[in-house]
Amino acid sequence: MEVSPKTIERFSLYRRLLKRFDGEWISSRQLAKLAGVTAAQVRRDMMSLGCIGASAMGYLAAELRISIGEFLDVPGGTNVALVGAGELGRSILSFFAGRRKNLRIVATFETDPWLIDRKLRGCESYPVERMQEIIKEKEITLAIIATPVEAAQQTADMLVQAGIRGILNFAPVNLDVPNNVFVEDNDITTSLEKVAYFASSDIKSKVKQ
Amino acid sequence: MEVSPKTIERFSLYRRLLKRFDGEWISSRQLAKLAGVTAAQVRRDMMSLGCIGASAMGYLAAELRISIGEFLDVPGGTNVALVGAGELGRSILSFFAGRRKNLRIVATFETDPWLIDRKLRGCESYPVERMQEIIKEKEITLAIIATPVEAAQQTADMLVQAGIRGILNFAPVNLDVPNNVFVEDNDITTSLEKVAYFASSDIKSKVKQ
Repeated sequence: MEVSPKTIERFSLYRRLLKRFDGEWISSRQLAKLAGVTAAQVRRDMMSLGCIGASAMGYLAAELRISIGEFLDVPGGTNVALVGAGELGRSILSFFAGRRKNLRIVATFETDPWLIDRKLRGCESYPVERMQEIIKEKEITLAIIATPVEAAQQTADMLVQAGIRGILNFAPVNLDVPNNVFVEDNDITTSLEKVAYFASSDIKSKVKQ
Repeated sequence: MEVSPKTIERFSLYRRLLKRFDGEWISSRQLAKLAGVTAAQVRRDMMSLGCIGASAMGYLAAELRISIGEFLDVPGGTNVALVGAGELGRSILSFFAGRRKNLRIVATFETDPWLIDRKLRGCESYPVERMQEIIKEKEITLAIIATPVEAAQQTADMLVQAGIRGILNFAPVNLDVPNNVFVEDNDITTSLEKVAYFASSDIKSKVKQ
């Protein structure tokens, strides 16, 4: 089975969409509409997990969720570090707190003395100098970068040295990391600027001139 | 000039990267490295804005930023509404407060009586019933959806009816909207699940079996 980032995106979305159908049947068409894909795509995806479904009824939503979990989740869960506990970092802590049992933010790293050696939204915060030690001790394999853009590359270097295998990067900069480290960028400001641009007919006509 | 979402993403990123070079020169190679694109791409992009640069020195960073602003920004700025002022919504309010002068969140809509008719992070919050009226009154053209997934489609329908032209959607569901409404999805949970999947060598070998 070829596993592309797009495939993982679809399974992640399916799983959350299926949550409200627990105990119910759902057809490939229904799920496809909610996920914005074709029904054939849903059937192919579920087939790849070994879920065939009952032709008349569709799929048992709860069963699909379990199969998707077995495919997506690391057994025992994944420990995640957050670097940068400013406004954005603390928002991320609140957002993920208790949301996915399988992805746990177990440590926060900061340079600001006011934000270290205390709990932030229930998560222990450490000085960045202790990154190597804490990442090993807590068996952390993923990190979220929510530092100012100026600090992002240096943070990535430190994380890679500490053995981190994947980074979710909120800083607006392309991170230079080894090939075996997976980086996913999530740039909220760009998302909004894109909507603003394409929603504005004034600008569109300006460009066409 | 062909304007694709990818083009807008690059300009949005360039602009923020250029900020720390204000008053300095920057070469296309330097900017390209930070943005994760080729130097030729940077030169093409800047050329499309009429910025040629001095061959030996590169570009004056501040001038590029102004040119990008003239291209990206709606004159007078854009008024934005936020629907859903839960944990995620309030994080978004804090994140954008004062960040981009040109994109202003000027109203929040909620159904929870505790979260309406008051200020949230400096932003006036209204009951969803007043959406049509407030969107017209405040000349709002964009909206951010941060509602629970169950409420997202109905929210989108109401926003479209109120004349909204673009939506930044944080709810994990595909929104069904008319063709002339631009939707950008930003799914933070999927971003993290993707990193977790590709960072886990255990799962990769499991899949290959």
